[in-house]
Amino acid sequence: MVDTDIVLFPDDPDYPTHPCHNHDLREAIMSGKQIKIAIIGSGTIGLSFAALHLLKNDAADVAVFDTRPDLDEYVKRHLPGYLNVEDSGRYMNRLTIAKTLAEAVENAYAVQEQGPEKLDFKVSVWPGIEQHALRDALFWSSTSGIPASEQCKNMQDKSRLIVVHPFNPPHIMPVLELVPSPATSNDVIDRTLSYWRGLGCSPVVVKKECTGFVVNRLAFALFREACSLVSSGVVSVEDLDEIVTTSMGPRWAVAGPFKAYHAGGGEDGLSGFMSKIGGTVQGCWDASADDVGKHGIVVGGEWQEAICQQAEEAYGLVDTKERDETTKKVLEAVGRG
Amino acid sequence: MVDTDIVLFPDDPDYPTHPCHNHDLREAIMSGKQIKIAIIGSGTIGLSFAALHLLKNDAADVAVFDTRPDLDEYVKRHLPGYLNVEDSGRYMNRLTIAKTLAEAVENAYAVQEQGPEKLDFKVSVWPGIEQHALRDALFWSSTSGIPASEQCKNMQDKSRLIVVHPFNPPHIMPVLELVPSPATSNDVIDRTLSYWRGLGCSPVVVKKECTGFVVNRLAFALFREACSLVSSGVVSVEDLDEIVTTSMGPRWAVAGPFKAYHAGGGEDGLSGFMSKIGGTVQGCWDASADDVGKHGIVVGGEWQEAICQQAEEAYGLVDTKERDETTKKVLEAVGRG
Repeated sequence: MVDTDIVLFPDDPDYPTHPCHNHDLREAIMSGKQIKIAIIGSGTIGLSFAALHLLKNDAADVAVFDTRPDLDEYVKRHLPGYLNVEDSGRYMNRLTIAKTLAEAVENAYAVQEQGPEKLDFKVSVWPGIEQHALRDALFWSSTSGIPASEQCKNMQDKSRLIVVHPFNPPHIMPVLELVPSPATSNDVIDRTLSYWRGLGCSPVVVKKECTGFVVNRLAFALFREACSLVSSGVVSVEDLDEIVTTSMGPRWAVAGPFKAYHAGGGEDGLSGFMSKIGGTVQGCWDASADDVGKHGIVVGGEWQEAICQQAEEAYGLVDTKERDETTKKVLEAVGRG
Repeated sequence: MVDTDIVLFPDDPDYPTHPCHNHDLREAIMSGKQIKIAIIGSGTIGLSFAALHLLKNDAADVAVFDTRPDLDEYVKRHLPGYLNVEDSGRYMNRLTIAKTLAEAVENAYAVQEQGPEKLDFKVSVWPGIEQHALRDALFWSSTSGIPASEQCKNMQDKSRLIVVHPFNPPHIMPVLELVPSPATSNDVIDRTLSYWRGLGCSPVVVKKECTGFVVNRLAFALFREACSLVSSGVVSVEDLDEIVTTSMGPRWAVAGPFKAYHAGGGEDGLSGFMSKIGGTVQGCWDASADDVGKHGIVVGGEWQEAICQQAEEAYGLVDTKERDETTKKVLEAVGRG
């Protein structure tokens, strides 16, 4: 059920509507009518988002479009696995498979794109969407790295597009990085935030476009250090993972790094922490730079094969169903379930 | 109750015992007798470890020594807070307050040191401990950065010392980094591993001494990136923490970075992940180096004050009791409770 506090449209009574937009969506939802979400691209992210809208928003009808010829059969076979409930039928009832892009986006409240991760594709798809969508439909891209300011190049109204970057799989993981371009309007940011908050997700607005956005920048910084430590012979792939899952993993599920170190500083907070532990911090940063350089930790470097092989030997094919079930329990434990 | 599979001593019937060691400890424990753990240093880590031994090992008597004049009163006032159980009396019964270092370590199975984080102190304390302890007592240092190879300089038998580095607070967090020096014997490593495993902790042997050991190297690598992103104006302190607690925090509580990316590569594992996402990874690493340099992210740099202030405004004094209670629930969710 949609939370009626969700701002689907701004409070301005003169808010313009599209010519083909012959009813007030906000009132429609408050009186129990449906909104449509168009999902463009039926890969794992697309199906996971489709499941999320269907599961968390009773007022959402979901239309999926992709160019694959077996789309209908494919979606109906795989989506129930994402829904992962006994009576998936009652969710699947609100799903339609669109035959064309135009059919998918027409009358949609929001159009969510997760097509190929290529700039050419992104640049070319939005003008087509713009042509068929309501004037006030929201445009969301699930890209993990192509900023809205590059994707919007050929759009008529560049203010409508915002990146909504999930952490895979989005129907399980709460975070969504909302990354506006400088052209994105505040209205689009506000309505996007409001929609996802209403679904119980944890959207965060990233203030400036940057390479990799925030999640991957942080995660890959730790990953580089992990590769460097394994390549230095300090620890094995499996032992490093064991260390993370029994230390900063659970800590950072409860309190992020700033809050954790701020707490570590006691009454003097982060400032006290830096005074007391600063020498150790700088020592680690210096050692990191030395080791990363010495072991040539760049993508495709000599170190890479040995680490990939260790991972294969340690894990084989990972059971992501089990991982996701355990992750749900963790999220419940921290009140994010 | 101690797991009787714990290897307290090697299986060799001729294993030498100290002159004052007039009973077989292994047999003593199997027949329900007690072993003694000496805790040197009564700060937060010392009390947390004391609580851990008392809570998780019914066969452990704990002796605490520190030079503070009000030691007896201090420990008896603060330790119950770490035990955090209704009937702390039955645990406190197994606690003694030692008046001298000699009294604390005599007849101990293991001596666990968490004194001042200064090389001079560590170097000077071990010979005194060595003088009074059983010949086969284990020597553990909780240092976060001074390697055993430096601490053992003045010891007669350098093979006895190993770093047992916790993640604060150790009575809650499972990880223990066991960091031997090149001189540490395999017997000491094995018995240390065995003892902590028997308590339900997650000890991991770090294969080589290195600056900061593994946990801090990893955590500080991400922390540097976090400081850089906030200093670049990309995201606020509080939003960055929110991002971490809703993405890699819960993920890494369930699967470490290698396992997580290995799973992300599907059937091709980590190798497939690097082929597909490698460009993004390298892009993030390059951007990281640029931004860290541009914003002068070194300890004590200009960036630091603004971030500490943001943390203070966002969090004030953190309720670590609540954090620890929630962390326990997370650890239960991942089967580490």
